[in-house]
Amino acid sequence: MTAQSTSTASGFAPAAAAGATPVEPFDRSTQNEIAAVTITPVAFKDPPLLNTVGVHEPYALRAIVQVTTRSGLTGLGETYGDAPHLHRLSLAADAVVGINVFDTNRLRFAVAQALTADTSQGGHGMSGMVTGSSTADRVLSPFDVAALDVQGKILGVPVSSLLGGAIRPEVAFSGYLFYKWAGHPGSGSDEFGEALTPEGIVEQARQLVDGYGFSALKLKGGVFEPDQEIAAMLALADAFPDLGLRLDPNAAWSVETSLRVAKALESSLEYLEDPTPGLAGMAEVRRGTTLPLATNMCVVSFADVKPAVEQGSIDIVLSDHHFWGGLTRSRTLGGLAESLDWGLSMHSNSHLGISLAAMVHLASATPSLSYACDTHWPWKQPDEDVVTHDLSFVDGSVLVPTGPGLGVELDVDGLAKLHEQFLESGITQRDDTGYMQRFQPDYTVASPRW
Amino acid sequence: MTAQSTSTASGFAPAAAAGATPVEPFDRSTQNEIAAVTITPVAFKDPPLLNTVGVHEPYALRAIVQVTTRSGLTGLGETYGDAPHLHRLSLAADAVVGINVFDTNRLRFAVAQALTADTSQGGHGMSGMVTGSSTADRVLSPFDVAALDVQGKILGVPVSSLLGGAIRPEVAFSGYLFYKWAGHPGSGSDEFGEALTPEGIVEQARQLVDGYGFSALKLKGGVFEPDQEIAAMLALADAFPDLGLRLDPNAAWSVETSLRVAKALESSLEYLEDPTPGLAGMAEVRRGTTLPLATNMCVVSFADVKPAVEQGSIDIVLSDHHFWGGLTRSRTLGGLAESLDWGLSMHSNSHLGISLAAMVHLASATPSLSYACDTHWPWKQPDEDVVTHDLSFVDGSVLVPTGPGLGVELDVDGLAKLHEQFLESGITQRDDTGYMQRFQPDYTVASPRW
Ligand SMILES: [Mg+2]
Ligand SMILES: [Mg+2]
Repeated sequence: MTAQSTSTASGFAPAAAAGATPVEPFDRSTQNEIAAVTITPVAFKDPPLLNTVGVHEPYALRAIVQVTTRSGLTGLGETYGDAPHLHRLSLAADAVVGINVFDTNRLRFAVAQALTADTSQGGHGMSGMVTGSSTADRVLSPFDVAALDVQGKILGVPVSSLLGGAIRPEVAFSGYLFYKWAGHPGSGSDEFGEALTPEGIVEQARQLVDGYGFSALKLKGGVFEPDQEIAAMLALADAFPDLGLRLDPNAAWSVETSLRVAKALESSLEYLEDPTPGLAGMAEVRRGTTLPLATNMCVVSFADVKPAVEQGSIDIVLSDHHFWGGLTRSRTLGGLAESLDWGLSMHSNSHLGISLAAMVHLASATPSLSYACDTHWPWKQPDEDVVTHDLSFVDGSVLVPTGPGLGVELDVDGLAKLHEQFLESGITQRDDTGYMQRFQPDYTVASPRW
Repeated sequence: MTAQSTSTASGFAPAAAAGATPVEPFDRSTQNEIAAVTITPVAFKDPPLLNTVGVHEPYALRAIVQVTTRSGLTGLGETYGDAPHLHRLSLAADAVVGINVFDTNRLRFAVAQALTADTSQGGHGMSGMVTGSSTADRVLSPFDVAALDVQGKILGVPVSSLLGGAIRPEVAFSGYLFYKWAGHPGSGSDEFGEALTPEGIVEQARQLVDGYGFSALKLKGGVFEPDQEIAAMLALADAFPDLGLRLDPNAAWSVETSLRVAKALESSLEYLEDPTPGLAGMAEVRRGTTLPLATNMCVVSFADVKPAVEQGSIDIVLSDHHFWGGLTRSRTLGGLAESLDWGLSMHSNSHLGISLAAMVHLASATPSLSYACDTHWPWKQPDEDVVTHDLSFVDGSVLVPTGPGLGVELDVDGLAKLHEQFLESGITQRDDTGYMQRFQPDYTVASPRW
């Protein structure tokens, strides 16, 4: 698979400014049909961030999806890059050729249809932590994003305008704290250094807050004994009394443990994320605490919504356009969360600039978003990306791009370099657990762990 | 990997082919801000259609909303025309001036904000049959429709394309049968004639099916004893064995009566609509029948969704962009219904051509719509409308307009005539019950009635 360089000549002349009413609407032109799809897997450097299923490998995988219309305009999407997902993306790519980029409704059904005969397993891109998401929505996502990017380029409007307009000029993000090793084994310390204690986490938080201005902080927990993680959160509350705090152990705890931690942190967190596995367990924890419970593990697809309401499992859902079917369907999730009185936050995996732009457009145009969004952005090397853009963090927020489409431009050299890195890495599946076991052979996964 | 189609570049050149990248996106131009709103109440002739709260008056009221941008483009919306609603529309009109038509998210909050101090009652436009809808969403609706109409005109695309693209080229409608008097008292018989018996209803159905080609039929019930309405439905099933049938008594029955009717019609209907009042009653009926239960009375706003799921009250929700906040939010309802495994149909009040066009665009772009839509259209005089358009029924369906925006054009003379008729009618509130009582002074409303 190789990257294909495409001119993204964008420009505008609103139809109405031209004078006469068009005989047939230009959006229906065959020029707006998808003529080609290029999928390029890439790998970018990732520090040894710990979680409850292991540790991040030296490279994170993504797939860059370029959707080109007959007129030669290209839209960009970004998604998971593991082998089973790449396989399904290729099935979908064949199916979307010929579809008009204005037909995101049709895009969805074409992708679902393309996957009906597929029986391959895995490829959820999230290393055992979110396995229940909808395969069809996961595969659809980058095509939906790319279609909206092209729409925006054709029409000369930013993606946020295609989503009902930005209701906030900038989007607030939360600093994402991780327990981490000093560096990948055998590579010495990286620039972030070690964080394995409450003090280390406070130090890391200080760096993120100083560097990015985040107004909220989330710790990826489930790594150490609950008491140590409680201590870390209390230390953060002490050090950053004005910041919203969250703890996410990725379902590492039993209901009993969850209730004990919730009690200890009841006055210190804005929410507790996925303390325990499953809708029933979450509902049980929820009945025993006043802490709002958030999830990106037990409500990860539209099919989970009804049972979650019936069981009373959650207070807050974390949207993520990568597994909720792209921007179009994530907007629906926003309306749905609002109807159900669920708070709305946003989840993130390791990602590049296309996804950052997509997240910012979506968040800007989602009125019900009530929390600062997660992002792994600070853990990425600044010189590794596949697009050029002017997205940057000021006071923890990113200004919504106002250029046509997503407002990012493909960096052909950057893409080629990260694709080369993908080939050299030899990684084809995310495997935090296997990587951990290389250094701790007796390491096993358990949920709940405590 | 690359999926390619063989394409010959020919035909239309999209706007983006024109040239330079804009310095700032044109959608943000002050030219796209709302400069003026004109609200015109109109009245159009309506036959004496019977329902469980009385009978339609000689005129139905609507309000026509014209939203004009600084650049001079006008978008159209249509909504209820009763006095309390007109008052709120005027509050909203003041609030939306200055908002960019691409900012439908902002429009929503501006309208809601404009109504916070309003304590007036009534104005739901539905004569006691749907009183729980959201006032803010009801008032927002015509502004959202008009904003999308203008967006479409600015961009040169049909509204369906702004809603994710039509997934069907035409939208199927259901013939809406009513018990009716021969004519309004004192006016002799109208061209539709009397329908007060099962035979009369079958005869009326024959006229509608012959004239419009409808493939589904709905009877507005709750008018006569349940046994007579059961007989009417069985007669329809006999006469039209291939058509989908529905009965809607507008909550005229107790749970017990509902269960009896449901049993009698279990093999004859595609759904039973609002047999009994309230979420709890509906849930009780639902537990006792295999007939799908539909509603446009107990789930009429986003706030009703959660309790309806919790209580298991319904199988099918009838969308209606007039009370679900316009097209943008009705699209959310479509996604929500799909997530909740609810079927989706569409409700209608007496309406003119702007609403017909809006309903067709919405229905065309709502994948989860699973039933033919309701419409009162055949009961309207063909020469009474406020727009020109080429919407017509072929085999019970209306082709989705492909012109920019809604695809309808204001008929200034038609608007003036129906506004004059509004002034002359002296009607300022829909009052089916009061009108009935003029002829049957002892008439009272009861729900349940049987
Ligand atoms: Mg999480
Ligand atoms: Mg009804």
